[in-house]
Amino acid sequence: MNNNKRSKLSTVPSSRPIRVGFVGFSGGKGWVAKTHFMAIQQLSSQFQIVALYNDTLDSSIQTIQSLKLRHATAFDSLELFAQCKDIDMIVVSVKVPEHYEVLKVILEHSLENLNLRYLYVEWTLASDTKKAEEIYSITQDRTNLQTIICLQGRKSPYIVRAKELISEGCIGDITSIEISGNGGWYGYERPMRSPEFLYDIESGVNLISNTFGHTIDVLQYITGSYFEKINAMISNNIPVQFLLDENGKRTKETIGKTCPDHLLFQGILQNGKIPVSCSFNGGTPVKKLTKNLVIDIHGTKGDLKIEGDAGFVEISNLVLYFYGIKNGNGANGTPTSNGVKNSNETNEKKAGNSPTPPSADEEATMEVFHLRNYNSLVGNILRIYESIADFHFLSRPDVKRSANSKDLLPSNKFEKQGFKFEGFPTFKDAIILHRLIDAVFLSDRESKTLDVSKITI
Amino acid sequence: MNNNKRSKLSTVPSSRPIRVGFVGFSGGKGWVAKTHFMAIQQLSSQFQIVALYNDTLDSSIQTIQSLKLRHATAFDSLELFAQCKDIDMIVVSVKVPEHYEVLKVILEHSLENLNLRYLYVEWTLASDTKKAEEIYSITQDRTNLQTIICLQGRKSPYIVRAKELISEGCIGDITSIEISGNGGWYGYERPMRSPEFLYDIESGVNLISNTFGHTIDVLQYITGSYFEKINAMISNNIPVQFLLDENGKRTKETIGKTCPDHLLFQGILQNGKIPVSCSFNGGTPVKKLTKNLVIDIHGTKGDLKIEGDAGFVEISNLVLYFYGIKNGNGANGTPTSNGVKNSNETNEKKAGNSPTPPSADEEATMEVFHLRNYNSLVGNILRIYESIADFHFLSRPDVKRSANSKDLLPSNKFEKQGFKFEGFPTFKDAIILHRLIDAVFLSDRESKTLDVSKITI
Repeated sequence: MNNNKRSKLSTVPSSRPIRVGFVGFSGGKGWVAKTHFMAIQQLSSQFQIVALYNDTLDSSIQTIQSLKLRHATAFDSLELFAQCKDIDMIVVSVKVPEHYEVLKVILEHSLENLNLRYLYVEWTLASDTKKAEEIYSITQDRTNLQTIICLQGRKSPYIVRAKELISEGCIGDITSIEISGNGGWYGYERPMRSPEFLYDIESGVNLISNTFGHTIDVLQYITGSYFEKINAMISNNIPVQFLLDENGKRTKETIGKTCPDHLLFQGILQNGKIPVSCSFNGGTPVKKLTKNLVIDIHGTKGDLKIEGDAGFVEISNLVLYFYGIKNGNGANGTPTSNGVKNSNETNEKKAGNSPTPPSADEEATMEVFHLRNYNSLVGNILRIYESIADFHFLSRPDVKRSANSKDLLPSNKFEKQGFKFEGFPTFKDAIILHRLIDAVFLSDRESKTLDVSKITI
Repeated sequence: MNNNKRSKLSTVPSSRPIRVGFVGFSGGKGWVAKTHFMAIQQLSSQFQIVALYNDTLDSSIQTIQSLKLRHATAFDSLELFAQCKDIDMIVVSVKVPEHYEVLKVILEHSLENLNLRYLYVEWTLASDTKKAEEIYSITQDRTNLQTIICLQGRKSPYIVRAKELISEGCIGDITSIEISGNGGWYGYERPMRSPEFLYDIESGVNLISNTFGHTIDVLQYITGSYFEKINAMISNNIPVQFLLDENGKRTKETIGKTCPDHLLFQGILQNGKIPVSCSFNGGTPVKKLTKNLVIDIHGTKGDLKIEGDAGFVEISNLVLYFYGIKNGNGANGTPTSNGVKNSNETNEKKAGNSPTPPSADEEATMEVFHLRNYNSLVGNILRIYESIADFHFLSRPDVKRSANSKDLLPSNKFEKQGFKFEGFPTFKDAIILHRLIDAVFLSDRESKTLDVSKITI
């Protein structure tokens, strides 16, 4: 199996590209310019940027001019932008605290504007779960609208490869998982220009929602399992930070910080009752003796280790170490159709049937996966766009469906990616993750281990 | 400072050696022969084996003959053994489930037998905390009797060195700690000859009491802090094991197992509110990509990493990696008298005073500590015996006390080692650890995060 091939579209589609409108694409050096724009440039037959909405018209016009977006129109009204019949897909990439208001307007107009087929939002969906649930609930009535959430770590080639190795039984049954990560900021020092909302617990953008959120989403994705129970302890050990000047030197000024700088998280996965241990630290790490991101997955027949220089699995170039059995299917790694063993099967096996010792044809191998020049910042998001293109062009009535397109619902609406290799994460996937993050805060607040087996939808 | 020097006794003491009687020293190939006996052989001026009690007289006599213990008498009654005026020190090294009954008899007679000065017991003190507390409570009335518990990991030169580096501020303030370990047995397979009590939750000897117990004791010891709160999740994912034949080959026979095979533990240390994450796995590990024991300690100025081939910190030869500042005292690593910063100090510092960036004279260094030929099985226990000898010979009224001997109480009874470099762990240290382990089981059972700040004495 090769789930890492970049796109099912071997040729340029015969129909017109998906017309994309951006909320929050401002300037040639911001996040969108560095990521979405770069991805779309590489997929110019499939996507075309046709509209920009920003707080000021000037900023949109300047962006259009400086990046030569010759098909794009600048909008000075979010309402008119949302009503525009020439936009197939809206990408929302503003600060998370602004998501809710922007999405409410877009969704209001999407009831009338049936031309709008795709709504692609950066993680997190909203600044808190209540708002996110409200947004999700509105999209449920929009049968024509396909949602996409930017949990792009799932599309990292290292993550897909790890998922593939696990689902093929190459490391046997997983017995335990340990994760440690460093959340970059949130430490003793804060750059003068760093936006305030990053350090404000109310903004919903923090070590837990982002560093932990992306990583645990990826972990659930590669293991093919949600959690059964979890416990968390959240620390804000550094309530006051030093401000750094423009040269990165410490000034005498200090500033308060309300967001956490450490998360301890542990839980048991539903499938196979696998124990998972996580430690996420804020601050610029010293960490010379270990990487800033380490995911250790131990199995009965082998191990996987994923390492990254930065604690952000979704945007870092990674290294995947694999020790185990190639063609693991033979013995006990029989995957179900979606590559995930169900827990009954696993429990039964554990009661004395398995794991069988490696047989003669199961010689262990060790491998390292690393794409030296992989631009993960662009690449993972690019792969989400590719999945959208696959979905769009291959699910059109006039395009012959491939055998793999059975996941697409008759209504052409794709409910969630769940743990499938195909497709892309949706608002439903986002809601499940929002609820897990809520449980993390609740567990800490109430000093409890929580049952989270019912948070999935 | 050098806390790793082996003994303060530079010369052979002028008085007679400490006369040792063993309960459970049977045969030339068992635990005692491999450890305590080897240690005493190297300390023959300080210790002399004078008595053996075992279930059968024959086994004691055979041990005496085969190991040429020419000063030793075989006892066939535990009562007579406990009453013997020629024994200064009793070492109890029987199966943990038998500790309680043996200790009760010894302590009963110790009321009359004032010649008995030392009682040295293997960890755990008893098979459960209730019994251990009862034993501890009896020893409180025996002012003449000094207790010692064999938490020998504290004496490992790697652990002492790590403690020294931390207390000297060489890695700055600790920001987080992650531990993962493998508990050797408790996996899918059980050797035919392996004693049943190892797999029986009622015996009190298991992954939590032993693998976790020794490791977390060492962790508290090197950081100089007990826990404030903890959470635990205990798994028995392998309730049925395969029996292995004498060649280590899997038979078709299976056998039930009630003890856990995995522990997830996380907690916050009292000092510095340091988050600690632990994952202890049972079973023979595959683990080619990581060591069976890894303790990662991250600080604001550096890191420590302790690695071992086996998940047993107390008996494994280790490797200690250090990256940080030599002579760390200068900046912010001012230790208190016992090498431990108190939490007020740390919190104050964190509120905007510190940590200061490394100054010019604080150049970072990287070092690896490893004693290739160190026999940790014997060596760590040997160092406990050395500490006992130091205590015994240096605290005698006729011996001039060194400046360091202020820890010795006027009654000549040493209450607990706590976090001091000097001395040895006592029953009081054991009780604190027993209570922590109890909290681990309770936290799992009740799905709660527990306040453990009051369990210390």
